[in-house]
Amino acid sequence: MDKKLKIRLVDATMRDGGLVNDFNFEDEFVKALYETNLRTGVDYMEFGYKASKRLFDPKQFGKWKFCDDDDIRKIVGENKTDLKIAVMADVGRCDFREDIRPRSESPIDMVRVATYLDTIREATYMIDYIADLGYEVSCNIMGISHAGQEEIHDAMMELYGTSADVVYLVDSYGALYPQDTKLLMEQAREDAFFTKKQLGMHAHNNLQMAFANTILAQGYGANWMDGTYASMGRGAGNCAMELLLGYMEHLGETRYHMEPALPFIDRYMNGLREKGVVWGPDLQYLVTGFKNEHPRAAIQFTKDGRKDHEAFYKEVW
Amino acid sequence: MDKKLKIRLVDATMRDGGLVNDFNFEDEFVKALYETNLRTGVDYMEFGYKASKRLFDPKQFGKWKFCDDDDIRKIVGENKTDLKIAVMADVGRCDFREDIRPRSESPIDMVRVATYLDTIREATYMIDYIADLGYEVSCNIMGISHAGQEEIHDAMMELYGTSADVVYLVDSYGALYPQDTKLLMEQAREDAFFTKKQLGMHAHNNLQMAFANTILAQGYGANWMDGTYASMGRGAGNCAMELLLGYMEHLGETRYHMEPALPFIDRYMNGLREKGVVWGPDLQYLVTGFKNEHPRAAIQFTKDGRKDHEAFYKEVW
Repeated sequence: MDKKLKIRLVDATMRDGGLVNDFNFEDEFVKALYETNLRTGVDYMEFGYKASKRLFDPKQFGKWKFCDDDDIRKIVGENKTDLKIAVMADVGRCDFREDIRPRSESPIDMVRVATYLDTIREATYMIDYIADLGYEVSCNIMGISHAGQEEIHDAMMELYGTSADVVYLVDSYGALYPQDTKLLMEQAREDAFFTKKQLGMHAHNNLQMAFANTILAQGYGANWMDGTYASMGRGAGNCAMELLLGYMEHLGETRYHMEPALPFIDRYMNGLREKGVVWGPDLQYLVTGFKNEHPRAAIQFTKDGRKDHEAFYKEVW
Repeated sequence: MDKKLKIRLVDATMRDGGLVNDFNFEDEFVKALYETNLRTGVDYMEFGYKASKRLFDPKQFGKWKFCDDDDIRKIVGENKTDLKIAVMADVGRCDFREDIRPRSESPIDMVRVATYLDTIREATYMIDYIADLGYEVSCNIMGISHAGQEEIHDAMMELYGTSADVVYLVDSYGALYPQDTKLLMEQAREDAFFTKKQLGMHAHNNLQMAFANTILAQGYGANWMDGTYASMGRGAGNCAMELLLGYMEHLGETRYHMEPALPFIDRYMNGLREKGVVWGPDLQYLVTGFKNEHPRAAIQFTKDGRKDHEAFYKEVW
């Protein structure tokens, strides 16, 4: 791929952050986030999931787990801006044939299809179906820290010929060290050259490595980077968008601006924390990160209000 | 230098952390930290500074700003362990001729001489004087994010022929990106080969890059790495020792153990936080890090209890 591919920053605050507060964001928050993204120069704002209402009871979650077109419209109107709208759809957890309307009828620009490596064949059907509706589509491969170069190569070959524009490596467990990011992203880049895919990085902060892995991935060929304001995201959280924005300024990417992120974080993100929403790289997430495991045990530890990290270590080790 | 140089982990919790609480650590804390280091396998424990009692009033600081031999002995006795004892001495802020006794009379094993690039000549006199007293000596070059390869080369040449065993790159402003760490450390490594110095990394966390920069530096040739428990250190804090310990286990360095760090952090480091001691990568430190500046304005902002990060950004930008 061309080294000069345009950088794309994706704000995943509501989607990955929604996993922390069951997608209960107030409209005022969502509007302020949208306005902030317009000012910081972020390219895509991900509103949440297109989750199946058969599998998940809409009464138990905020509306951004389902991202109905009308709910998005209430925030963005016709969205006559440069900021594009994205949603995520999980393989096996989404009624995409019923719930995703043609792009011409929707405020959504991009659908990100999330899959683990072992369901990637299923993902290819979703990708092509959704792309045929007119959407930009990415394939976000989760749990990537369990993969080696061979698995990356096989996944890229599965996606060859599909309509996915972008392939993301998603470090769901926050377990990648810089040398792993290098190995996996360089393999993906080699395959991306032939398969004509752009590459993306979505990192988690269990080992306080989310920002480092994201900008390292960019150096190895990814031009799509996910961030969330104040790092809000499942468990240890994500790469901080404010760090990405500052780094883009540092690189001379003049269309990005960190400053507008600061008052938004002070008021809204810290506002969530004050209401008791908890995320960030606490010791329990460090333990699952080192163990290269899904953070679910650490999330439960957090929900239970436990503080005995030594006992937790013994439980999961 | 030999790639197989033995890794050395230095616990700088009391020295860099002392900058946050004016070195007011209780003996119980210090003893627990010492015991923890014995269990985690850390190689050196830095107790604090050898600061001049003429320049700094001992009534205004805890005793670990001065690290009298007798105070250290009260904690470690004769220290018949594998854990070595270190202190730091700042160029121009230390009466080293009066305050540092021969090693044979002291519990201290290593003196780390801290200097900026422009006082490195003065540092060389201190280094050789202190080495002649029998100590291991390192030269810790601060503010390294203002240096390029040429300045690193010049500094290494100044230290050529001195008795310093180790040369540290100290990212005082927490402003290095991975590519900077690579550039500077590879230059230092090239020079270290001829000058027979070992190399070290001391990182700050303004850009949440302390752990990444430390292990990247190790990949580029540093075998000495500084950490602090729970990242306690000036401003945004340091590389977390618990992360370094976990990483060492990951690398198969079987003499290090993360687990004993966890109960110490839960009880003692979180105990400090509960008493109101504040450190960590808040937005004000991110701003000075991006600006590649000393964090003093951000420290003042923190002390003043301010939260208006947008105004702060405008003040320092």
